[in-house]
Amino acid sequence: MRPGTLEVRDEVKEHTPEKIEGVAKTVRELLTKMKDTSEVIVDLAYAALMFDSKEIAEEVKKLEAEMDTLRYEIRIRAMLAARTKNEAVQLSGLLQIASAAASISHAAADMVKLLDLDIEKRPFLSFVLRDAEEKIRLINLSERSDMVNRTIDELGIECNTGMRIIAIKRGKRWIYDPEDHVRLKAGDVLIVRGTEDGYEILNKYATGERKWPEDSNEEYREEE
Amino acid sequence: MRPGTLEVRDEVKEHTPEKIEGVAKTVRELLTKMKDTSEVIVDLAYAALMFDSKEIAEEVKKLEAEMDTLRYEIRIRAMLAARTKNEAVQLSGLLQIASAAASISHAAADMVKLLDLDIEKRPFLSFVLRDAEEKIRLINLSERSDMVNRTIDELGIECNTGMRIIAIKRGKRWIYDPEDHVRLKAGDVLIVRGTEDGYEILNKYATGERKWPEDSNEEYREEE
Repeated sequence: MRPGTLEVRDEVKEHTPEKIEGVAKTVRELLTKMKDTSEVIVDLAYAALMFDSKEIAEEVKKLEAEMDTLRYEIRIRAMLAARTKNEAVQLSGLLQIASAAASISHAAADMVKLLDLDIEKRPFLSFVLRDAEEKIRLINLSERSDMVNRTIDELGIECNTGMRIIAIKRGKRWIYDPEDHVRLKAGDVLIVRGTEDGYEILNKYATGERKWPEDSNEEYREEE
Repeated sequence: MRPGTLEVRDEVKEHTPEKIEGVAKTVRELLTKMKDTSEVIVDLAYAALMFDSKEIAEEVKKLEAEMDTLRYEIRIRAMLAARTKNEAVQLSGLLQIASAAASISHAAADMVKLLDLDIEKRPFLSFVLRDAEEKIRLINLSERSDMVNRTIDELGIECNTGMRIIAIKRGKRWIYDPEDHVRLKAGDVLIVRGTEDGYEILNKYATGERKWPEDSNEEYREEE
């Protein structure tokens, strides 16, 4: 193996999961959902602590409960899907990953339990907000912003600013890990993750101080 | 509370941690490091499974061991730092977060243990790679790319492409969660996380097929 390359085992390609392709489709979907949730719940837990927000903490607890439901469902599906020993062995591995993803969500929920303590007993985490490399920030979307009424995909927010939207608070409703087709509305509170530079840029667009670079995303697409 | 706002408790501002500011400086640094590591280790664990890479799995195990060391150190520091009951109560909260961050790393390490199994017993996770919203990908940096010999900060990779570099493999060495001042070298393998669009763009720069947008980052900075 020459330096600078990463060993990705070729032999794995011979073992494509055709056999469990059909039966385990929902196992696959459930696990993908669990993976995505295990990532967003950690971000949200740190966000809850950093902003001392019981509201975000409640959402973390809800997501933890959802993860337990997903783990239950994936177990049932896996047992129904396994028809041979080989299938059972492979599905068992997927269940191990599902368990680990659930453990991550439990750890995230453990963190936010601190917010149930009296204020004087709670630790202060704003320093993590200040010192961490990837920062989690809140952005209020002004009605003056030209991001309003456009989808995350149309704007190409992540490509253009490097900021990832972890969640959107719209009125009393929460949208986690929003899909690309979600259309932004005036008054949305965006919980975003990324660099300080990216935050500064995105915040200027969100307040309406700067115009969204109209052609930046489309331009690239046309070239393709 | 009006709809669309996020309640960030004002009262917390009265309780700034001045008292533990001095004594707990290293507790703070250790916890920040644990937070950053807990995020990158989850990304790396999924990357190890997706690429069936024992090499990345080994790095996950090393990071898990580092997290245990960090947790040990933060406990010692916290005990030495606490001089009043109030300080002890607050530091106890920080230790709870440290424990949760360590639990996350244990869950990540549990996932990659699957790669110790014989190939036919391992589950296939490339579907998670395909279906997940945020994808983890590998990018080889060509000597023809004009990203070579420039720092992550100079390039503004995250701002310009939305892709975050989780780790860099350079020869036999690994750099996790690389700092902004890290200078890229020809032959580097970048493990990146972000959208499919962002990956396509970054990969074109990395192969040298497209020139890096020279003024995009500086332009914005000048305007500020």
